[in-house]
Amino acid sequence: MIENTFYSPAVQGEFKTFELGDLVLASGETLRSAKLAYRTFGTLNAEKSNAILVTTWFSGTGKVMQDVYVGTAHALDPERYFVVIVDQLGSGVSSSPQNTPPPQSMAKFPTLGIGDDVAAQHRLVTELFGIERLALVVGGSMGGQQVYEWAVAHPAMVERAAPIAATARISLHQRVFVETLREAITSDPHWNKGWYGTNLAVRDGMDRMARIMAAHAWSSEFYQDERWRSILGMSSLDDFVNGVMKAYFEPMDPNVLLCEMHKWQRADVSRHAGGDLATALGRITAKTMVMPISHDGFFPPHECEADAGLIPGARLRVINPTEGHMGLSGFEPRYMEQVDKYLAELLAA
Amino acid sequence: MIENTFYSPAVQGEFKTFELGDLVLASGETLRSAKLAYRTFGTLNAEKSNAILVTTWFSGTGKVMQDVYVGTAHALDPERYFVVIVDQLGSGVSSSPQNTPPPQSMAKFPTLGIGDDVAAQHRLVTELFGIERLALVVGGSMGGQQVYEWAVAHPAMVERAAPIAATARISLHQRVFVETLREAITSDPHWNKGWYGTNLAVRDGMDRMARIMAAHAWSSEFYQDERWRSILGMSSLDDFVNGVMKAYFEPMDPNVLLCEMHKWQRADVSRHAGGDLATALGRITAKTMVMPISHDGFFPPHECEADAGLIPGARLRVINPTEGHMGLSGFEPRYMEQVDKYLAELLAA
Repeated sequence: MIENTFYSPAVQGEFKTFELGDLVLASGETLRSAKLAYRTFGTLNAEKSNAILVTTWFSGTGKVMQDVYVGTAHALDPERYFVVIVDQLGSGVSSSPQNTPPPQSMAKFPTLGIGDDVAAQHRLVTELFGIERLALVVGGSMGGQQVYEWAVAHPAMVERAAPIAATARISLHQRVFVETLREAITSDPHWNKGWYGTNLAVRDGMDRMARIMAAHAWSSEFYQDERWRSILGMSSLDDFVNGVMKAYFEPMDPNVLLCEMHKWQRADVSRHAGGDLATALGRITAKTMVMPISHDGFFPPHECEADAGLIPGARLRVINPTEGHMGLSGFEPRYMEQVDKYLAELLAA
Repeated sequence: MIENTFYSPAVQGEFKTFELGDLVLASGETLRSAKLAYRTFGTLNAEKSNAILVTTWFSGTGKVMQDVYVGTAHALDPERYFVVIVDQLGSGVSSSPQNTPPPQSMAKFPTLGIGDDVAAQHRLVTELFGIERLALVVGGSMGGQQVYEWAVAHPAMVERAAPIAATARISLHQRVFVETLREAITSDPHWNKGWYGTNLAVRDGMDRMARIMAAHAWSSEFYQDERWRSILGMSSLDDFVNGVMKAYFEPMDPNVLLCEMHKWQRADVSRHAGGDLATALGRITAKTMVMPISHDGFFPPHECEADAGLIPGARLRVINPTEGHMGLSGFEPRYMEQVDKYLAELLAA
């Protein structure tokens, strides 16, 4: 275990912990004394019909979802809905390589899949809150991968689904890309196969990963317009790479990111139907709104559109932040305006 | 110096060498006994009006330009034109880190710019062949960067210009991307600041670079359609990454690629006009055909189109190989059909 205050309530804001006990994973392994971090907003109504589950993305925690997506000014309005934000497993906040005691600590933390996340979240929702049907499951990027998993694995429980900037099956393009992120970290000798003394020892590899993210997660338009000045307050390209990208990842735990990458790289709901994506997505009964980001180099709109075409009655709404994938974090005011508009449309359906 | 047979005529095909003597570089440094590798096809006419200069891209040499772009079936037809293919400096074939003797060998090879390439090529064209005006300068990617440099630095000498999949000034997006390639190599301890015993010692770093290239130089459509099966004969994603991308770069010299990256990352014709791109491109008198590749993640069509808008009378022709930037290598038959059609149109103008 490593004491990393970045994942503490002091940095992440207040959250609660749901004790899962021993969680048997899809791999067959067991995660001992597993914990799921969550935070709730609003009140569950008597019919338990107003619950919204919000999932988290790669490197993100419940905090960014709370800060950017949830509030009375948003579609995810706690005055109307009972909003549950849940941190994915391996996020640093829920059970993760750095906060799990031996013999499952750090490099010995078990390998996880998106299916394990949804299995754990299913227990949180049903056992803790007694919710039998979710009014909406929504999340972006890896969070969107969890939305797809929910909609296919538990169709009767998901009334509405909103995968933002995500696909139902990871593309081969992204599998290669995520591997470049993984190699940036694991090639650092100080990573030491996962047995480092502090996350900062792996700073070189983390910095290389941050730059690869910089090159791919932001659009060419973002760079062309030097939007780090207007939306991020940075003065130059180097200032942006160092002051935003490297600084963002620096406090994080390398094994946490590697754990998430493993899941990201393998997300694929078609495994519920023997590899047949059309059959898997055809099982979705949720009212689904597929919401790609217009300039997204990870989950390009044409791939999201292909998913939408396989989901009965799905609507496609393309969000237009010119930043690309990182637009998810809501830097551009127009981004949340569009998200709220489309989610409100979905919630009214 | 390193004996690397990859850069020998046995692998690269026959080429000639033009002795530049001591080449004073834009940096102020001097490259001693500099050499430019070139190969010619066809015959220079009496008026010396039928000369076409073909430049090379990152990691490429004259061989791929000869094999893919030049021939009686192509617009670059040796029966009509005197075609000169010239290897860029630092390419491994022209003067380069691995083939230059001490004291300028390997890590001590001078830093170059695209302007140095064009200065050296200018001497080849004028001193060796006595050509005062080139009917066409054409090249792709870094080759296209050289085309822009020619058209801006020597407007009176360039009758026609065809930059393929290139921009006149490197985008900030690509500057970040190229840095991830550089870091993949330089983070390999066996690179040893440029002082390795053999290129194969740096295999880990080169392999990481190859994968980053794989993730960015091919389009999402290429991956989605698994086009490595149809156009490259590979059986799977791993087979493609290992058998095409890693295998392609493995025989190359790491310092050669780093030398080229340095130039690639800094290409910018606006320096001829104090940083004013519009003024620099406004000086072009060549009939220019700007030819982006439709799915190019390096030089996206909208950036090429912006350049075209600044060049007097420029035509824009978008080539459509769904592979993305790597389409340049002509894997898709329809690619060269389009290139030939547009170059023929330009040559007839």
